[in-house]
Amino acid sequence: MADRAFSSGSTSSATDEARSRVVIVGGGFAGLNLAKGLDRAPVSVTLLDRRNYHLFQPLLYQVATAVLSPADIASPIRHILRHQQNVRVGLAEVRAVDLDRRRILLEKEELGYDYLVLAVGATHSYFGQDHWAAFAPGLKTIEDALEIRRRVLLAYEDAEWEVDAERRRAKLTFVVVGGGPTGVEMAGALKEIASRTIPKDFRHIDTTSARVILIEAGPRLLQGMPVPAGARALQQLRAMGVEVRLGQLVTDIRREEVVLGEERLPATNVIWAAGVRGAPLAQTLGVELDRSGRIKVGPDLSLPGHPEVFVVGDLALVVDARTGEAVPGVAPAAIQMGRFVARVIGEEVQAKGDKPPRPVFHYHDKGAMATIGQNRAVASLKGFTFSGFFAWLLWCLVHILSLVGFRKRVFVVFSWLWSYLSFTKSARLITGDAEDAIHRRRQEPD
Amino acid sequence: MADRAFSSGSTSSATDEARSRVVIVGGGFAGLNLAKGLDRAPVSVTLLDRRNYHLFQPLLYQVATAVLSPADIASPIRHILRHQQNVRVGLAEVRAVDLDRRRILLEKEELGYDYLVLAVGATHSYFGQDHWAAFAPGLKTIEDALEIRRRVLLAYEDAEWEVDAERRRAKLTFVVVGGGPTGVEMAGALKEIASRTIPKDFRHIDTTSARVILIEAGPRLLQGMPVPAGARALQQLRAMGVEVRLGQLVTDIRREEVVLGEERLPATNVIWAAGVRGAPLAQTLGVELDRSGRIKVGPDLSLPGHPEVFVVGDLALVVDARTGEAVPGVAPAAIQMGRFVARVIGEEVQAKGDKPPRPVFHYHDKGAMATIGQNRAVASLKGFTFSGFFAWLLWCLVHILSLVGFRKRVFVVFSWLWSYLSFTKSARLITGDAEDAIHRRRQEPD
Repeated sequence: MADRAFSSGSTSSATDEARSRVVIVGGGFAGLNLAKGLDRAPVSVTLLDRRNYHLFQPLLYQVATAVLSPADIASPIRHILRHQQNVRVGLAEVRAVDLDRRRILLEKEELGYDYLVLAVGATHSYFGQDHWAAFAPGLKTIEDALEIRRRVLLAYEDAEWEVDAERRRAKLTFVVVGGGPTGVEMAGALKEIASRTIPKDFRHIDTTSARVILIEAGPRLLQGMPVPAGARALQQLRAMGVEVRLGQLVTDIRREEVVLGEERLPATNVIWAAGVRGAPLAQTLGVELDRSGRIKVGPDLSLPGHPEVFVVGDLALVVDARTGEAVPGVAPAAIQMGRFVARVIGEEVQAKGDKPPRPVFHYHDKGAMATIGQNRAVASLKGFTFSGFFAWLLWCLVHILSLVGFRKRVFVVFSWLWSYLSFTKSARLITGDAEDAIHRRRQEPD
Repeated sequence: MADRAFSSGSTSSATDEARSRVVIVGGGFAGLNLAKGLDRAPVSVTLLDRRNYHLFQPLLYQVATAVLSPADIASPIRHILRHQQNVRVGLAEVRAVDLDRRRILLEKEELGYDYLVLAVGATHSYFGQDHWAAFAPGLKTIEDALEIRRRVLLAYEDAEWEVDAERRRAKLTFVVVGGGPTGVEMAGALKEIASRTIPKDFRHIDTTSARVILIEAGPRLLQGMPVPAGARALQQLRAMGVEVRLGQLVTDIRREEVVLGEERLPATNVIWAAGVRGAPLAQTLGVELDRSGRIKVGPDLSLPGHPEVFVVGDLALVVDARTGEAVPGVAPAAIQMGRFVARVIGEEVQAKGDKPPRPVFHYHDKGAMATIGQNRAVASLKGFTFSGFFAWLLWCLVHILSLVGFRKRVFVVFSWLWSYLSFTKSARLITGDAEDAIHRRRQEPD
C-alpha cells in the first residue's frame, strides 16, 4: 500500500485530479524557481529531491573552508514552499523515466505526469579516472564540503606531530585542480586559513609556510568570464602566495602525490574542481547527450520529440540562438530556465483552445564574479571587469541578497564580518567518525 | 620515526625537558578547565582528545532538535588554548595506561608522564542491551545529535507519504527513554517541533497530532534535582501535551516498537536518554569501578595507590565527605574538579622541599536547571525551585555566559531569538548519505 503513496497522495481532492500534473525532479536553483513560478497556475506540482533541502551552492566552498555551517546555506525545500498550496514536496530519487507512458520510476513506485521537468544538475567528472575520487574529493554537496573541511583540518593536526620533514611538507601542501570559480575560491580560502586563521593555534609547525597550488589545464583562469577577469584573479592569487600553474595537465592522482607529466608533486590534500558532468539520470533516457553528459534540448528547453518534458539547469545543453554560445552552467542561468519553463507551462494550461506557440529561451548574462580570499574578488559586469575590495563588497551583496530566508542573511553577514575582523573561522570542527580520523592518520605507510 | 612524535615533540626546548610533564586525556569541561588552571604553573601540558573540539554538551539537544548548528556549540581545543604557551594539543585516542611505568599507550606510540589526568567522560549505557542502540540512539556526541536530527526529520518525511494509517501513527510517535535533564529537554523540544515549527510545511499529515512519550523507570522526573523541580517539569510537559509515564520500565526496543512489560508501543523513533557509564578506557586500568563503570577515587581525586594519577569529570566516582553523597555527573562538577586538580598539581610542582599535604575536594552545588520547550524551564537554586518563563530566561543567561567565544554567544542568542519569534528551527537538514536515507525509507518491512 505504502508504495503508491507518491502517486496517489493521501488527501488529493477532486479538483486536484482535473489539474495538469507537473512533476519537477530536483530542488536546486532551476527546480525551485520553476515551482515558485507556477504559484498561480492551475496545476498540481510534485517536487522531488534526494535531499530535503535547497542548497545555495555558490557558498559551498565557505563550508569547506570552515567559515559557514551547512545550515547557513541550506533551507528545507518544503519550508521554502510552505505557503504555496499547489505544490507537494517529496524526498525520493528518480531511477528512470518512461517517456512513452509518461511515468517516472522511483525506487519502488511509479508516478504519472502531464509535464515533467528534469532539474537534477551535474556531478563531478574525473574524466574517466574515477579512482582519483578517493584522493581528490570534489565540491558539490554538503557532505563533500564537510569531507574537505575535515581533510584540511586533519592535515594540520597530522603535520603538527609529524617529525619527518618531507612528509610534513606533503601534509602542508594543498593542491586544487581546476581554475574555474570554485578552484579560484578554494585556493584563495585555503591560503588564507594557512596564513591568517590558524598560525597561533600550532606550536610545532609554521602554517604560513603551507603551499597552496592551483592547477589549470587551460591557458588562463576563470574561462567562463572575460579575459581581464582571469588575469586579475591570477595576479591577486599570486600576490597572496598561491602558486598558480596554467597549461599543466594532471596525469595521475595517488595517495600522497599528484603527477603532472614528468613531475611528481608530493601532496596529501588534493581538491577536485576541474570537471562536471550531467547527473546519471540523463543516461537512462536514451536521448542524445553531449560529451559532458548533458541533454541537448530545443530552443524552448524541451526534449526533442517530447514537448511535455523539459530539462533545465546544469543538465541542459542549450545553444542561445542570439549569441550562438551554449548557456553556461551557472546559478543565474538555472534560475532563468526555471522561470522560463514555468511561464511556458502556465500559459499552456491556461490556454483555451489550441496551445500557444512556444517561446524561445534566451540567457541574460548579468555578469559573473568570484572571491579571492578574505577581501578581494573579481567581477565582470556588462563588459567591465572590477577587482579588489569593491568587487568583493559587490560579491557579498549579491550572494547575501540571493540567500533564502532573513535569518540566513543576517547570520551569513555576521559570520563574514566576524571572520573578516577576527581572522577566525568558527566552524573548524573535524566531524564524522572519530575512530576513522585517528585510524587514517596512523595507517599511512611509514 | 613519526610514531614518536607525541612523545618527543619536534621543538621542545631544554627548559621543557626539566618541567613536570602533565598529560590530560580528554578536552571536555574537566580537562579543558584543568589545562587552563595550569596556565601559570611551571609544567609542560599535553592535552589529548579523540576530537579536535571542545563540545558544550548541555546544548547538544538543540543540535538534535535543529535549533543550533554543531559549530555553534563547539570550538577547536587548540584555538581555545592558543595563547597558553605551556600546552600542546593532540588529536589521539588513548588505548591503555601503564600505571607502573607511568606511560600511556596511543595507537602506535607511547607517552611518559609525571602527572596523568583522565577526563574521558562517560558514554551511553543500554544496561547490557547493546542491540537497542540501533533503534534508540543516545545523545553524547555531535554525530549522535545529527543522527537524531536526521531520524526525526525523516520520520515526518516518511509519514507525509505513508498511506497506511497505523504505520503513519508509528512514524509520528516519538519515545524518549529516561527522565533526566536530557530526556526532559528532548521531549519538550520534540513536542514543540511537532506543534509549532513544522505544521505548515506538510500537506497530508497533521504534525500537531504527533505523540511524544517520555518514559522514566523511577518515580519522578529530574531525580538529580530537588523534588519540586521534578514535579514542575512533569506539570509543564503534560501541559504541552507530552505523555509522561513514570515508574515504567522499557523491557525491549525493536525496529518499530518499544516494549514495556505487557504493553507494545508502536514507535519508529526512539531516543535513549536513560543510562550512562564510564568510558571504556576505565576498564583497561585494572582498578576498582562502580556499577556504572566509574573509577573510585580518593578525596583528592587521585587513584588509590597512584597519587600521580587523577580522574576528573563524569568518569570519577567521588563521595563528598561533607554531604556523604556522590558528586553528580554534571558540567559544574567537572569544571570544579578540573580547577581543583590544577591547583593541587600547581602547588606540588612549585613546592620547595616536601610536597604539601593534598587538599580534599568538595562540590559546590550552585543549582541545576532544565528547559522544557521554547520558553519554559525549571531551575533549582540554593533550595528554591523556579519554573516557567523566568527560569527559562535564567537558563538562557547561564548557558550563553558559559559558551566559549564571543561569536558563539551572539550567534546562539540570535538563533534562540529567531527560533522563539518565528517558531522556525533553521537547521532542519537531513544530512549524511542520501542514498541511505532513501533506501532506509523503502526497505522497511511492508
